[in-house]
Amino acid sequence: MRIYNFNPGPAMLPPAVKQQIAEDLPNWRNTGVSVMEVSHRGAEFRQLVDETEDLLRQLLGLPANYRILFMPGGARQQYSMVPMNFARPDQQAVYFVQGHWGKDAIREAGKFCRARPLMPYVADRPYAQIPEHNFDSITPDTAYFHYTPNETLEGIEWHHYPDVPHDVPVVADMTSNMLSRPLDMTRFGAIYGSAQKNLGIAGITLGIVREGLLDRAPENVPLMLDYRTYANSQSLHNTPPTFPWYVANLVLNWLKREGGLEAMAARNQKKSALLYDFIDGSDFYHNPVRSDHRSRMNVPFWLADESLNERFLTESREAGLLGLKGHRFVGGMRASLYNAMPMEGVQALVDFMRDFEKRHG
Amino acid sequence: MRIYNFNPGPAMLPPAVKQQIAEDLPNWRNTGVSVMEVSHRGAEFRQLVDETEDLLRQLLGLPANYRILFMPGGARQQYSMVPMNFARPDQQAVYFVQGHWGKDAIREAGKFCRARPLMPYVADRPYAQIPEHNFDSITPDTAYFHYTPNETLEGIEWHHYPDVPHDVPVVADMTSNMLSRPLDMTRFGAIYGSAQKNLGIAGITLGIVREGLLDRAPENVPLMLDYRTYANSQSLHNTPPTFPWYVANLVLNWLKREGGLEAMAARNQKKSALLYDFIDGSDFYHNPVRSDHRSRMNVPFWLADESLNERFLTESREAGLLGLKGHRFVGGMRASLYNAMPMEGVQALVDFMRDFEKRHG
Repeated sequence: MRIYNFNPGPAMLPPAVKQQIAEDLPNWRNTGVSVMEVSHRGAEFRQLVDETEDLLRQLLGLPANYRILFMPGGARQQYSMVPMNFARPDQQAVYFVQGHWGKDAIREAGKFCRARPLMPYVADRPYAQIPEHNFDSITPDTAYFHYTPNETLEGIEWHHYPDVPHDVPVVADMTSNMLSRPLDMTRFGAIYGSAQKNLGIAGITLGIVREGLLDRAPENVPLMLDYRTYANSQSLHNTPPTFPWYVANLVLNWLKREGGLEAMAARNQKKSALLYDFIDGSDFYHNPVRSDHRSRMNVPFWLADESLNERFLTESREAGLLGLKGHRFVGGMRASLYNAMPMEGVQALVDFMRDFEKRHG
Repeated sequence: MRIYNFNPGPAMLPPAVKQQIAEDLPNWRNTGVSVMEVSHRGAEFRQLVDETEDLLRQLLGLPANYRILFMPGGARQQYSMVPMNFARPDQQAVYFVQGHWGKDAIREAGKFCRARPLMPYVADRPYAQIPEHNFDSITPDTAYFHYTPNETLEGIEWHHYPDVPHDVPVVADMTSNMLSRPLDMTRFGAIYGSAQKNLGIAGITLGIVREGLLDRAPENVPLMLDYRTYANSQSLHNTPPTFPWYVANLVLNWLKREGGLEAMAARNQKKSALLYDFIDGSDFYHNPVRSDHRSRMNVPFWLADESLNERFLTESREAGLLGLKGHRFVGGMRASLYNAMPMEGVQALVDFMRDFEKRHG
């Protein structure tokens, strides 16, 4: 039975990447040992570091004045690093919050600067759209504007760039949708994202920062939370998470072979449309999100009869469809459709859902 | 040709661990996918987390009032976390510095508390012993005493516990010698160590903290630098580095099968004695460290004729002996003999060194 893994992250890897991991394990690049056992300062790993940066620059068409950083700690650590590096303690930073992760980001930022929501977050139930807003209250002295272009619990995604005034730097938590389509990096001061969705496995976090922002940090930032520590050392100041970095390299090579971000954008659009169209055509399943704000990466859906939830999860697992349980904060189901999920996986899910509805509807 | 990897870290893994990684890759514990692709909140990974903690408690004979934490960021991140969590900004912490890593630790701590060296560090050349000292200047209000029981560049190791007065908590950076012999944890307030030497691969850091110390941190510590974040969630507050955690689990299982820490202690003693005895019996090679302060983990040595260095490195690589180049700050050679290095590897190194001396001495 072919297995399809809809986990929200850690998520599935492309089969070709897993195959390469298996092949490399006894003897990586003629070192005689595995990539896990070589020095991060040796010639072979330095070459992997250079290659990985080149691949990212090519795939994203990155301008030269942006620096690529590989960091530990996940997006959660970035929630501290962004305000500690980009804002003075007395300075205002504006956060746009339309879901779970944005809420956690602003809460953490409040420890280090005057973090203010663009408009209040009403937490009584999951948002079903990006709230109506304007940016009139953003003043020129704002340190930065932060938002979360894709919220994984609510299944809400921005399909446009926010028009933030006064050249206030835009910072985005792109953990769950980076590399899923082309990106105009010139619209951003900085982006960041944990790797375990579209860039491999847990344990490493990608950051891309415009050079001018790197000099804002005060002197007393903890060494490993200071972006300059990474920018000044090609992220090799201390021993980095070498194996997750290696997997990121394999994933980027796979992305390139598959046609790059344009190809991914087309495929991701098609995959999510297949699932949303099926859900919208059914009374048995539903997704409440406004259609032009729906996430291509995370598709939450609910059964009209929630008493069937456990049966749905058991039967889907038996059919080789893994990881469909919704986040514990919102319940229901969720199918995560990152780059590595093939069209056949989504088709298999829709076929299962149709059959399940027939049997239980 | 059998390859022996003397890298200082990332270092060699036990062959049995690499074999298990290869076997698990297509289908870990009947999940149908690899361990890299499962949720850290799923039943299978939670079981691995419980097992790993149990193994550590067994191997170390850990008292119940110590908490086990798995963290990102390496020991470097701990250099910030220790003072941020255990000292008030106006409070004194005393650092014992006899080498490279201790020096970096106290420099970082100075950002967050009144970090004071027990005695001045004289950096003109590598130390060849633990300096003479007494603890008379440590006062009862000292937040903690920090030391580095094994210095990897200098090859200096403490073979006794420091007798710090007034119940001042002792904190140790055990990155390079933890799990290499039994440990009386009751002598410590906290220890920490990156995994890539004796606990698997880079990307995860073990901390063991006495419960009473967990409540010292102020409220505004960055979330991922607050020990309580890990202590209150079994280190699962956010997505952890799951693959490095899994490898740590395999290494601990291997340690247990090999006889535990007593067996490791005997083996490590024998391995390092073989190499030191050979070096001491030769005029061609030398190690300057006082014999009762020598490291069992990292054996630096120098050729009397340094013009032969490149040839030594080339020929040793050709003989399958990898990673022997000394740290760039001290030059010469270094053989790292962590738990995974078998006696046969050390014997092969000594045989090569004897032969090289015959041909070039």
